[in-house]
Amino acid sequence: MKTKKVAIVGASGYSGEELVKLLLHHPHAELVAVTSRQNAGQTLAQVFPKFASHPKSQSLRFVDPNAELLAKQADVVFLALPHGVAAEFALPLIAAGCVVIDLSADFRLKSAAVYKDFYAHDHPAPQLLPKAVYGLPEVYREEIKKSLLIASPGCYPTSILLPTIPLLKAGLVKATGIIADSLSGVSGAGRKAETDYLFCECNESVRPYGVPKHRHLSEIEEQLSFAAGVPVVIQFTPHLIPVNRGILTTLYLAPQTHFSTTAEMAAFGGKLAAAYAAAYAHEPFVRLLEGKALPDTKNVVGTNVCEIAWRLDARTGRLIVMSAEDNLVKGASGQAVQSLNLLSGWPETAGLI
Amino acid sequence: MKTKKVAIVGASGYSGEELVKLLLHHPHAELVAVTSRQNAGQTLAQVFPKFASHPKSQSLRFVDPNAELLAKQADVVFLALPHGVAAEFALPLIAAGCVVIDLSADFRLKSAAVYKDFYAHDHPAPQLLPKAVYGLPEVYREEIKKSLLIASPGCYPTSILLPTIPLLKAGLVKATGIIADSLSGVSGAGRKAETDYLFCECNESVRPYGVPKHRHLSEIEEQLSFAAGVPVVIQFTPHLIPVNRGILTTLYLAPQTHFSTTAEMAAFGGKLAAAYAAAYAHEPFVRLLEGKALPDTKNVVGTNVCEIAWRLDARTGRLIVMSAEDNLVKGASGQAVQSLNLLSGWPETAGLI
Amino acid sequence: MKTKKVAIVGASGYSGEELVKLLLHHPHAELVAVTSRQNAGQTLAQVFPKFASHPKSQSLRFVDPNAELLAKQADVVFLALPHGVAAEFALPLIAAGCVVIDLSADFRLKSAAVYKDFYAHDHPAPQLLPKAVYGLPEVYREEIKKSLLIASPGCYPTSILLPTIPLLKAGLVKATGIIADSLSGVSGAGRKAETDYLFCECNESVRPYGVPKHRHLSEIEEQLSFAAGVPVVIQFTPHLIPVNRGILTTLYLAPQTHFSTTAEMAAFGGKLAAAYAAAYAHEPFVRLLEGKALPDTKNVVGTNVCEIAWRLDARTGRLIVMSAEDNLVKGASGQAVQSLNLLSGWPETAGLI
Amino acid sequence: MKTKKVAIVGASGYSGEELVKLLLHHPHAELVAVTSRQNAGQTLAQVFPKFASHPKSQSLRFVDPNAELLAKQADVVFLALPHGVAAEFALPLIAAGCVVIDLSADFRLKSAAVYKDFYAHDHPAPQLLPKAVYGLPEVYREEIKKSLLIASPGCYPTSILLPTIPLLKAGLVKATGIIADSLSGVSGAGRKAETDYLFCECNESVRPYGVPKHRHLSEIEEQLSFAAGVPVVIQFTPHLIPVNRGILTTLYLAPQTHFSTTAEMAAFGGKLAAAYAAAYAHEPFVRLLEGKALPDTKNVVGTNVCEIAWRLDARTGRLIVMSAEDNLVKGASGQAVQSLNLLSGWPETAGLI
Repeated sequence: MKTKKVAIVGASGYSGEELVKLLLHHPHAELVAVTSRQNAGQTLAQVFPKFASHPKSQSLRFVDPNAELLAKQADVVFLALPHGVAAEFALPLIAAGCVVIDLSADFRLKSAAVYKDFYAHDHPAPQLLPKAVYGLPEVYREEIKKSLLIASPGCYPTSILLPTIPLLKAGLVKATGIIADSLSGVSGAGRKAETDYLFCECNESVRPYGVPKHRHLSEIEEQLSFAAGVPVVIQFTPHLIPVNRGILTTLYLAPQTHFSTTAEMAAFGGKLAAAYAAAYAHEPFVRLLEGKALPDTKNVVGTNVCEIAWRLDARTGRLIVMSAEDNLVKGASGQAVQSLNLLSGWPETAGLI
Repeated sequence: MKTKKVAIVGASGYSGEELVKLLLHHPHAELVAVTSRQNAGQTLAQVFPKFASHPKSQSLRFVDPNAELLAKQADVVFLALPHGVAAEFALPLIAAGCVVIDLSADFRLKSAAVYKDFYAHDHPAPQLLPKAVYGLPEVYREEIKKSLLIASPGCYPTSILLPTIPLLKAGLVKATGIIADSLSGVSGAGRKAETDYLFCECNESVRPYGVPKHRHLSEIEEQLSFAAGVPVVIQFTPHLIPVNRGILTTLYLAPQTHFSTTAEMAAFGGKLAAAYAAAYAHEPFVRLLEGKALPDTKNVVGTNVCEIAWRLDARTGRLIVMSAEDNLVKGASGQAVQSLNLLSGWPETAGLI
Repeated sequence: MKTKKVAIVGASGYSGEELVKLLLHHPHAELVAVTSRQNAGQTLAQVFPKFASHPKSQSLRFVDPNAELLAKQADVVFLALPHGVAAEFALPLIAAGCVVIDLSADFRLKSAAVYKDFYAHDHPAPQLLPKAVYGLPEVYREEIKKSLLIASPGCYPTSILLPTIPLLKAGLVKATGIIADSLSGVSGAGRKAETDYLFCECNESVRPYGVPKHRHLSEIEEQLSFAAGVPVVIQFTPHLIPVNRGILTTLYLAPQTHFSTTAEMAAFGGKLAAAYAAAYAHEPFVRLLEGKALPDTKNVVGTNVCEIAWRLDARTGRLIVMSAEDNLVKGASGQAVQSLNLLSGWPETAGLI
Repeated sequence: MKTKKVAIVGASGYSGEELVKLLLHHPHAELVAVTSRQNAGQTLAQVFPKFASHPKSQSLRFVDPNAELLAKQADVVFLALPHGVAAEFALPLIAAGCVVIDLSADFRLKSAAVYKDFYAHDHPAPQLLPKAVYGLPEVYREEIKKSLLIASPGCYPTSILLPTIPLLKAGLVKATGIIADSLSGVSGAGRKAETDYLFCECNESVRPYGVPKHRHLSEIEEQLSFAAGVPVVIQFTPHLIPVNRGILTTLYLAPQTHFSTTAEMAAFGGKLAAAYAAAYAHEPFVRLLEGKALPDTKNVVGTNVCEIAWRLDARTGRLIVMSAEDNLVKGASGQAVQSLNLLSGWPETAGLI
């Protein structure tokens, strides 16, 4: 299979580090450059001792980010940068013919106005928005294969969209009143030297934050609206919990069908099961739990899998759907590599199982 | 102030241990007996090295539980036992004139039928149900003062009832569609040698459980129904998170008032603030957060305080209320001691601040 | 009992916060001022929500540190500042007649030369060194009572000195070849926004640091030398472990007596037990463990107690002594309050049990 | 390359689970059987949801252990059983011509008498002891290639032997006075439903245990004696720390050479570096750290690597060596697979990088 040369801009954060790990071990991708202003000049082995056993870790050195140079070295460039900054790098790379897989929020929205509303600054490259594909392979597989600019989804969005989109598309749940209650590990906050994320401030602590208008709402609602065919506004509450990795999302959804008997509930349950099976039975990275099993982040951390389970509540008439994923893998870098595999014509699971 | 002699039945679990700690340091209560079948014969210091510096820890020995004997020794007996077993102990103690403060679920419901529905066995002492007072001091302070049988609330119920009852009583939120999403530390599962609660199974793990019909729903809904004046059915999802102590509950509530302008939202917010202030401004153990502050379990662990904050969401028209408490203190043993203080005529905060 | 007015300079770090907690609840001390440049103007309740239930937390505001002003307000001033800075504050406070209890390393050494060797700068106030008393009450109780400048010991030193000094003084172990292997919770690093102490960098990680010449060695060796009557040089290896609080130290010591039979070992064990009993049987804050018990940080966290246990090894002829303490209480703020009690003529345990 | 059929007896513990993971993904081994009395009848996916994405997890079912049957199915059988039980299974498997890789302690010692001294029962199959090879590939690579019975080393021994053996063999350190202070994650205690290993008993706790005579001392001392050419007795103190995985060992060693000048110390340091380089520069699973780097368990967890760093202390004349490994990989299952690779003629790193 034809290999591709890949580079990572912003490789010293948690998502960048996970990308390094995945790409070092990828059977078809060759990691040719990693950038980081603060670590420029150092080898991969010096910055990330855990990769020191990989032969390339001794020779590959961090460099200052330079779009022109990267465009010459790499076929595909991953951007693991803050929003705003990512778009500035994407422009010259796209212009130079590179494929860009962006892990920031910069190209996830179709509307520059919504971007400004949620991110509080003008979009740095609105002309690229129409070219970008939302990099959720389970929904946009064919588009990803043909795209030159992938907007890889955020961690919260992935944990919410995967469980919800098939139900909205199948018309099984209402597009109104959706609630997503999410719990995230601390790596979701990035490798930032801020007091709030010190060990002693997070350990033995649980707390909500960003209530009620978190930035990720914008892409979640846009994607849910596409699935529902009507504008969707949801309630979303993120919480910080003391684990390194993992997102657990609990969704509260209103079935389109009212069930007042056990038989009716079972019938509706059959439709739900069928909708999920149709969507995900053959997906390598979505695991529909059976029987009494409920999602648990420890069963997905380190993998590109999103676990999903659901329960109907006869008492309230509501549907509860729960999902678990690794925020740095299916919620970030693994999903980005999944897109790389798709657009490169490689097996979708290459380097991810 | 007149002291009372107190005993703890089932003092080797986490709630029991916390009761020991609180009562050893209580200025007016004298701890005269602690029971535990497995630790009978050992001193407090041997079973709980952390209390070894207290003079009484060398002399007070665990004994096998014996209701007759306890009735002679103690004025007030705390039951930190599994449901079902607690009621069996309460009967002879009440008969002998002891005041009983029960930390189990046995006397929290008014209806023996609902008890059977949720706990899957007949109530062991239905004749005592009418005598029991639900031991939530912020709601039943006067009743607690006069009661001989206190059904001290569970940890999840406390974290849900304190934020919700004032709003239902004031008619500010709808009694329908209430959702409570709760996160609990592992001590909530008790000191049970079960694989599910081993360090390696809980650490770096987050998971829902007991979906959708948790036993605590019965007492939560009964109390909310009393507050609302109509039957209330809620959605409740507990999750296990890797902290020793602490419960964080996020509630999704529907305001009775629709707000479509900023002014309307502010006006409704004013009513909410007023209702909470009326209910809790002078409560020593409820802390209404101000400004940008949100609840964080690390700010309440080790205290008898329940923190509450709320946000109105202009986008969804919904009210989000968040609470944090220590599941072993305000969610169990601290609250039980608060009742002890009330019924003994001591300052309500004695031994708790 | 006569109360004293106390102030804390540098009250926003972890030791400062623990001092605030202890002094807010102290029966005889009145906390009149807390300083912090970054939090100046805010109330205690705003900076530390966990203290918000205390009445004084609403009225007491952080101020910029000003030695002149503090000297007028307070009888005793605690310095919870970095070394170097502390001495600068101590000078005017002492001059103005305040008692100073310094939690930094600035006055712990008798020799300004050794200070410079270990702290890499000249001592800022060498003229005060002779006046300072090393604030380890179990060793310098009488001196503390009469002192105006207390150099409160560090967390590692306390965990090493308490188990070792009685044995050196009794001539039971050799003054050579002492090894101290210590494990510290992350709060020992202070509330510093550094990447190394982020949750994700500490959780699921264990690592040595500062090998082989940690700064605390200077005060440890000076104190051990006083006890032994000869210069003592020890091996000390600190490790960082993922807990908020707690230090566990394992000491490897060489008995003065060689034992080759069980009887000889038992005889020597008897002498050890006697030496420890003589030193600590009546100490309120040293707990000599008995039987099979070994120190566990969870049994001392939140208390001012240091646990000690020892074992003789018939196979190696060596003595192993283990200690556990809360680095922020007996290892810092609790010990400082113990000194406050002593020099104020209050019961030594006031506010600490 | 020729594949081999492999089976795991006792696959439901932590080491067994790690073996399952490694062997499911191994390029040359085919996992044909997993046994577990308690899980017999269930699929791998049911018992370990995290493996559910692997195709074989749906078809491979746990069975009751049956040596005869296993001998027919598998070329190589891994025993992840308690000591004592393992030997009973090994006998019929060896007799039937299977290669046995035993992760228990049963065949690690050459002397049945020492076994009895440390394990308190007669060795169940002393006749096999001479046939067994201690499965530490860095020391016994050639013997492992030819062996039918591999006694795979324990986690503590690996972390102590790898750093120490080259120095003893080179005569650089004394064989007397060796101290090993080790910190282990909780998975080292196995998946046992015991109160001591509950989340709330381990989290926020650090404690020594098994002082002073831990069972693993027997194999450590036997192997060190072989390396030194004289009987070696060491001091070993294990501690339990709140991480899932990882062992950090700090060793205190006495150089054969006394150094009193910087130049002498540098010269001796050169010899140490040379000895380690000679032993490990080309080892794929030993990483000699350079510069200021010190071992950190988070850099080896999930890998088969043992990190080693050392420091000479001019003040004490002592050598401190520190190592870090994943107790379940290089300390157990990874090392066992490394032996599988060797004896199968596969690349030593197959399935391990």
